[in-house]
Amino acid sequence: MNAITEKTAFLIGEVQSKIPLVHQITNYVTVNDCANITLAVGASPIMADDIAEAADITSISSALVINIGTLNERTVQSMLTAGKKANELGIPVVFDPVGAGASRMRNETAKAILNQVKLAVIRGNLSEISFTAGLKAAARGVDASEADSRRDAAAVAKRAAEQWDCVAAVTGAVDYISDGHRTIAIYNGHKMLSRVTGTGCMCTALTGAFAGACGDYLAAAAAGIAVMGIAGEIAFETAGEKGTGAFRSAIIDAVSLMDKTVFEKRAKIDEI
Amino acid sequence: MNAITEKTAFLIGEVQSKIPLVHQITNYVTVNDCANITLAVGASPIMADDIAEAADITSISSALVINIGTLNERTVQSMLTAGKKANELGIPVVFDPVGAGASRMRNETAKAILNQVKLAVIRGNLSEISFTAGLKAAARGVDASEADSRRDAAAVAKRAAEQWDCVAAVTGAVDYISDGHRTIAIYNGHKMLSRVTGTGCMCTALTGAFAGACGDYLAAAAAGIAVMGIAGEIAFETAGEKGTGAFRSAIIDAVSLMDKTVFEKRAKIDEI
Amino acid sequence: MNAITEKTAFLIGEVQSKIPLVHQITNYVTVNDCANITLAVGASPIMADDIAEAADITSISSALVINIGTLNERTVQSMLTAGKKANELGIPVVFDPVGAGASRMRNETAKAILNQVKLAVIRGNLSEISFTAGLKAAARGVDASEADSRRDAAAVAKRAAEQWDCVAAVTGAVDYISDGHRTIAIYNGHKMLSRVTGTGCMCTALTGAFAGACGDYLAAAAAGIAVMGIAGEIAFETAGEKGTGAFRSAIIDAVSLMDKTVFEKRAKIDEI
Repeated sequence: MNAITEKTAFLIGEVQSKIPLVHQITNYVTVNDCANITLAVGASPIMADDIAEAADITSISSALVINIGTLNERTVQSMLTAGKKANELGIPVVFDPVGAGASRMRNETAKAILNQVKLAVIRGNLSEISFTAGLKAAARGVDASEADSRRDAAAVAKRAAEQWDCVAAVTGAVDYISDGHRTIAIYNGHKMLSRVTGTGCMCTALTGAFAGACGDYLAAAAAGIAVMGIAGEIAFETAGEKGTGAFRSAIIDAVSLMDKTVFEKRAKIDEI
Repeated sequence: MNAITEKTAFLIGEVQSKIPLVHQITNYVTVNDCANITLAVGASPIMADDIAEAADITSISSALVINIGTLNERTVQSMLTAGKKANELGIPVVFDPVGAGASRMRNETAKAILNQVKLAVIRGNLSEISFTAGLKAAARGVDASEADSRRDAAAVAKRAAEQWDCVAAVTGAVDYISDGHRTIAIYNGHKMLSRVTGTGCMCTALTGAFAGACGDYLAAAAAGIAVMGIAGEIAFETAGEKGTGAFRSAIIDAVSLMDKTVFEKRAKIDEI
Repeated sequence: MNAITEKTAFLIGEVQSKIPLVHQITNYVTVNDCANITLAVGASPIMADDIAEAADITSISSALVINIGTLNERTVQSMLTAGKKANELGIPVVFDPVGAGASRMRNETAKAILNQVKLAVIRGNLSEISFTAGLKAAARGVDASEADSRRDAAAVAKRAAEQWDCVAAVTGAVDYISDGHRTIAIYNGHKMLSRVTGTGCMCTALTGAFAGACGDYLAAAAAGIAVMGIAGEIAFETAGEKGTGAFRSAIIDAVSLMDKTVFEKRAKIDEI
């Protein structure tokens, strides 16, 4: 087993023993799945998006996840306020710029968050992370599509990481995670994941859970993304033939049963 | 096989090959199910309800679905703005007047949408469509109930279609869909569908997916409603005895596995 | 069978025959589960949270459930308005003070509701009900945790009931329900329930359904909480080994199949 696999496998137990509280300001489409996958991996979710309590809730949490899937004027303010409070207290912030590139509002919000909040991790598909890195990208919807070429994904992850001095992850058929110095590739996952809404959001939620349990955010992102990919593989094996409803439920099942042994056996993680 | 069945069956493949992006401004109760069923049928969902981006998102979409299940003052404005933009660009608008008749706010919102937005399809239960057609209706809750007599359903569909110059669908034990000239009956479905929240909303989401892939909105509505009905039958056969949780998941499964062959074998669609 | 078990078992049929409409102003994390479990037990849910219709919807309902899981400034006003309307019309109000103690906003909102709305039932974990009773409590997240000692749970339930002249329920490993005079303990449930989000919210939704069908709110709360606990046991037996995704779905299944016979056979309810 290589060093990065060993490090990430170790984090499975860390989350389960530390039970980090993960504050999530996220979208109302996949919020239930995000809460359940956070619980499944052994952490504890708390969703709170009003400006009057966002900073208070962040203050008692171990990590903050910001997801702009169904942003609105009200919650954007809460995201910024919570993000700044997290920075003040040294709490890691994980950002999912859902649909960045698809509307001016999303673009401006993503930029505001990037400029005003110091991030631990940013995770998205190739279009979204390209946008955050100032590269041309054509977003189409919010779910992964064939249009997401992986050609430049590793380079885009590295560039976003350098630009924002954080860990950046471009997820797709192969996932690339970079801190600007090191870049990791994860070969787990299954294409059926793109037929269920929220698998990207859940991936970000898992990353938030690991970031809340470990100060090494490159490893935390790798753990979150690899757990999601492995869960997708297991879910396909156990429920793929039944359809996407059963598959979706089986993803949560797989995460809830994930342990160090399963993870080590299945993880395909390499530094590139 | 009759002509309308042939036409609707053809649309299954059309959605899968065109992958229409379906913008949905909908309620937070069933939004996850709507997103997942949209993906299951082969289309791509995008949910966005802020006034600052609603028109932008509609502009890049192939169809717009408006559902007032949990409307609020903020999202009503977004619905109207997105609807007008869709009209401007010739993008079909599918409207689900959830709970119309149950509160003054719902009534006024439904009327505002009907008056300000040119609809491709309106779908609801008998109470809701009766309300939109200016007929007396006593809504009770938002889920289909025994109170929904099918006695006048075909006539109500026809009248709503004539009044708003669109396709109108009244779903129930038998579904009736009219464009004012032709009226279609669909005999698929299962009564267990009324024990799961959101089966009406999902039906509307499916109709949005088909309308995004085909300019014949009578056929699009028939396809969406028949797919939902057939999925309900299959889900009952595979999971009905287990309970409503398993049944709900099996609905998504059935849609995700639906193809032209399954559809043609099961569809019970007739012009009346 | 003791008297309280007999009384609560009777309510299973009451809900199924009366089909109470339950207005729920609740959080967007678990709202779909709340709607589905309300349908599963035989009642009818309606979610509506805009101030312009909250009172209208309450007026046509048999019970009102208020849950502050993802409260915001807008919905807090709707909660108060709906609550007062319910009081005016003699409609029971069931309150779930999710996360009370975790932020000043939650604390103030919980107090405002307690002071301005006469409640039929208040249900929460030990931290939350302790807070409402003016006792020291350290909330951590919104899901039940080991930190919730049951040592004082019965006393806390009794004190909250006395203070607010309502039925108060503290749920946990053992559930305690008091009207200030009588206190009931329920020994049903399974620890896996704490690994799924919304099991507390669903418990409150069920209590709302029973309160909408029966004026004896102590029995209604006991029925709601016992049904949830029994469903957790059955779900663990049928799906526990598969993981928390399958378990979650199996909870809804179990409620949808629950009848008087199953309930009487499994219920472990005692007056203490």
